[in-house]
Amino acid sequence: MNQKMVFSTVGKVVLSEALMLTPPMITALIYGESALPFLAAIAVSIAIGSIMLLLFRTKNQVIYAKDGFMIVALSWIALSAIGALPFVFAREIPRYVDAFFETVSGFTTTGASILTNVEAMSRGLLFWRSFTHWIGGMGILVFVMAIVPGMSDRSIHIMRAEMPGPVVGKLVPRAKDTAKILYSIYIAMTIVEIILLIAGGMPVFDSIVHSFGTAGTGGFGIKADSIASYNAYLQWVITIFMLLFGVNFNLYYLLLIRRFRSAAKSTEFWAYLGIAFTSAALITVNTLPHYETASDAIRHAAFQVSSIMTTTGFATVDFNLWPMFSRAILLGLMFVGACAGSTGGGIKVSRVVLLIKSVGREVRKLTRPRSVTHVKFEGKNVDDATLSSVGTYLATYGLCFAGIVLLLCLEPTFDFLSNFSAAAACFNNIGPGLALVGPTANYSAYSDWAKLLLSFAMLLGRLELFPLLIALSPSTWTKR
Amino acid sequence: MNQKMVFSTVGKVVLSEALMLTPPMITALIYGESALPFLAAIAVSIAIGSIMLLLFRTKNQVIYAKDGFMIVALSWIALSAIGALPFVFAREIPRYVDAFFETVSGFTTTGASILTNVEAMSRGLLFWRSFTHWIGGMGILVFVMAIVPGMSDRSIHIMRAEMPGPVVGKLVPRAKDTAKILYSIYIAMTIVEIILLIAGGMPVFDSIVHSFGTAGTGGFGIKADSIASYNAYLQWVITIFMLLFGVNFNLYYLLLIRRFRSAAKSTEFWAYLGIAFTSAALITVNTLPHYETASDAIRHAAFQVSSIMTTTGFATVDFNLWPMFSRAILLGLMFVGACAGSTGGGIKVSRVVLLIKSVGREVRKLTRPRSVTHVKFEGKNVDDATLSSVGTYLATYGLCFAGIVLLLCLEPTFDFLSNFSAAAACFNNIGPGLALVGPTANYSAYSDWAKLLLSFAMLLGRLELFPLLIALSPSTWTKR
Repeated sequence: MNQKMVFSTVGKVVLSEALMLTPPMITALIYGESALPFLAAIAVSIAIGSIMLLLFRTKNQVIYAKDGFMIVALSWIALSAIGALPFVFAREIPRYVDAFFETVSGFTTTGASILTNVEAMSRGLLFWRSFTHWIGGMGILVFVMAIVPGMSDRSIHIMRAEMPGPVVGKLVPRAKDTAKILYSIYIAMTIVEIILLIAGGMPVFDSIVHSFGTAGTGGFGIKADSIASYNAYLQWVITIFMLLFGVNFNLYYLLLIRRFRSAAKSTEFWAYLGIAFTSAALITVNTLPHYETASDAIRHAAFQVSSIMTTTGFATVDFNLWPMFSRAILLGLMFVGACAGSTGGGIKVSRVVLLIKSVGREVRKLTRPRSVTHVKFEGKNVDDATLSSVGTYLATYGLCFAGIVLLLCLEPTFDFLSNFSAAAACFNNIGPGLALVGPTANYSAYSDWAKLLLSFAMLLGRLELFPLLIALSPSTWTKR
Repeated sequence: MNQKMVFSTVGKVVLSEALMLTPPMITALIYGESALPFLAAIAVSIAIGSIMLLLFRTKNQVIYAKDGFMIVALSWIALSAIGALPFVFAREIPRYVDAFFETVSGFTTTGASILTNVEAMSRGLLFWRSFTHWIGGMGILVFVMAIVPGMSDRSIHIMRAEMPGPVVGKLVPRAKDTAKILYSIYIAMTIVEIILLIAGGMPVFDSIVHSFGTAGTGGFGIKADSIASYNAYLQWVITIFMLLFGVNFNLYYLLLIRRFRSAAKSTEFWAYLGIAFTSAALITVNTLPHYETASDAIRHAAFQVSSIMTTTGFATVDFNLWPMFSRAILLGLMFVGACAGSTGGGIKVSRVVLLIKSVGREVRKLTRPRSVTHVKFEGKNVDDATLSSVGTYLATYGLCFAGIVLLLCLEPTFDFLSNFSAAAACFNNIGPGLALVGPTANYSAYSDWAKLLLSFAMLLGRLELFPLLIALSPSTWTKR
């Protein structure tokens, strides 16, 4: 490992957090709140970032795959550690562990909260919470790559380590340009959502933070009942935008360069829509007796499905009160997740589709041992290496998930559904789970070590396992 | 598909069920009970078996892989359908759906019961219940293969379809001889256990049926409190024999032919023991406050771990009352299961080991993209095809399990832990789950379709997915 280069890059990322903390500071000033918590945090990030840059100066700019993983893992941890400071400095989340949980939950776009009264929080911090979603959604390092000069030559390894999905392609030859294109689409879509929400009567501040939460598929709200108190139009706008941000951004790029036919052929996109519509239809039928009108049932089913599947985590109803079948569908959707290359989490639709297709292939192979069978995806034959790495990914995923649930079960007061869904909701970056961690509850009752475990689960899920596993593997730190 | 040959082989299997029904009939006569229910069932199996043999006579004895899967799937369903009859004829389980569930549970060595009062059942039927465990444990078709003449040329495809584990090897060149060797070891071990139990003061009848339940890793008992009322010595004997029957039988063959060194090198065996001991140790510590002496805590932890991991399902305590952490360990062990090539169910230790090793390889591949890495297992390099088929197996397993849980959640009155653990306990052929289907409860409260779903889950798990999936796939029935 090129340790000096890794640490100096992390130093740059820490330094750029000063920049990220500026918009919430300005928000605080606009609403007449104290800017000091943010100023202090900015000072800390400038100090630590500069020291790291000075300490780890190196001319060796060569980067290997492993360095990419290390940069991503360490950057996310460092950013969360410093990003937690404004909450503590402002005494609005007095305990550092809680603030760290909340910030990891923000950057990883999970949206799980330890706040018992979100409405009491100041505007600046509410903005910061949602802004972390927005930055984390497209990827912190993609963000840094788009704005910080001089990272272009080593960008693709970092991009590969941070971008979700089984296959990461550059849209254009240079990774830096790809990052810029992705961010432009992202910003444009966010602005359109803000405008549509304001047009529907949502206050400007609410529109901005909810659009951040939607864009990053995060889910932090500013009201105790999440999105329930907004009107039906606003709920539909958010439903549609959650779905849109769960689509692979490569598709939007294809639309932008007018390759409509390629875009329309995406297997993953149609599978994604198919799963979402089927789930919403099943839940609508199952919950019909709970609502006065069918249109209410449809709206709530669509909203919750869209929210859970894209791993956003907003809610318009307490789906904890739904029948077990509907809750089980949501629990299943938590694992499926959104499309690869989107801001959403979970296993990703493309992996699930590849999985189902390889089951079909296995059946064909078993019954016709001598025939040659291929798995087709997005119009191409998928090679065995990709299929096998998808299998390994899922195996790793299953092992990690089982480990998290098992450890969480050491918490004496929580029931199994709470622990299972808490692990699922954090690991898949959704936010609310079921039972004791349902949409009207929060994670404050967990003990400190459980909060740290869940923070780890959020990072593990957002970074798709391997960066953190590699950072934790002893061989990374012993050999050169 | 060679339909005639498939159906005539199934006919032979059905015919041989008349033979299987004879020992319980004799038992009934010994205890002065009516032999009529068994006689009637024997008549039915002879009638149906003969008709099938007459209808589907063919000279074409060629068998392909697909035919092997079909024979296995259809044989298991047919045997269970007819094996359920004595319960109904005797009016001890009046409803056919319940009797079918109980018989599938027997043959698949699950041990899940719908009986609310097992102690009221007649001796002949108790014997039959446990005897289905014993036959199903080593494999119904392996049994038929060992006793029915003229199946040797097409045996290996059937054996491959029925024997659990990622790799099935013949011990000796002819499959029929392999079946005979396996059954000899199986019978010898069962007899030793019966003798040890009788020596410890257990009544002869109890010793025989409990040995059947242990050998097949089934778990049907004859008392409401399972094994709780027997003394500590008897509990330890059963603990050890459950563990022994969870070992790959190839290992016993290696011992038999005095290749001790090869046997001692088995990765799977040591992993199996390691997982069992670690789990028992963790549960002992976790449940220590629940018991008066440490030796009680150790005995109960060892018994329950051995019972759940080998997917037997006997119990000496109501582990439903244990702390959540211990219950979560048991839930995890339900999935791990026993060794490949044993009578136990679950995912199998060998697959779990291969899984963990391929995660390690993926990490190495990601960090050193240019190096060549192998996965070693049982002293050999595992080829990519095997690794990828293990991955696909687990993926299929996960999808099937999720589907079963989802459908089970349509049951209105059951909580999530009950449904989740019921699905896990049936799919992995364990028997008792947690909460409403815990060791002191039973499956009688589920509705008819849920019982059929769980019966399907038991068959799916016992036959390792693909035989049933292939039998259900439309292409099997449309094309020739």
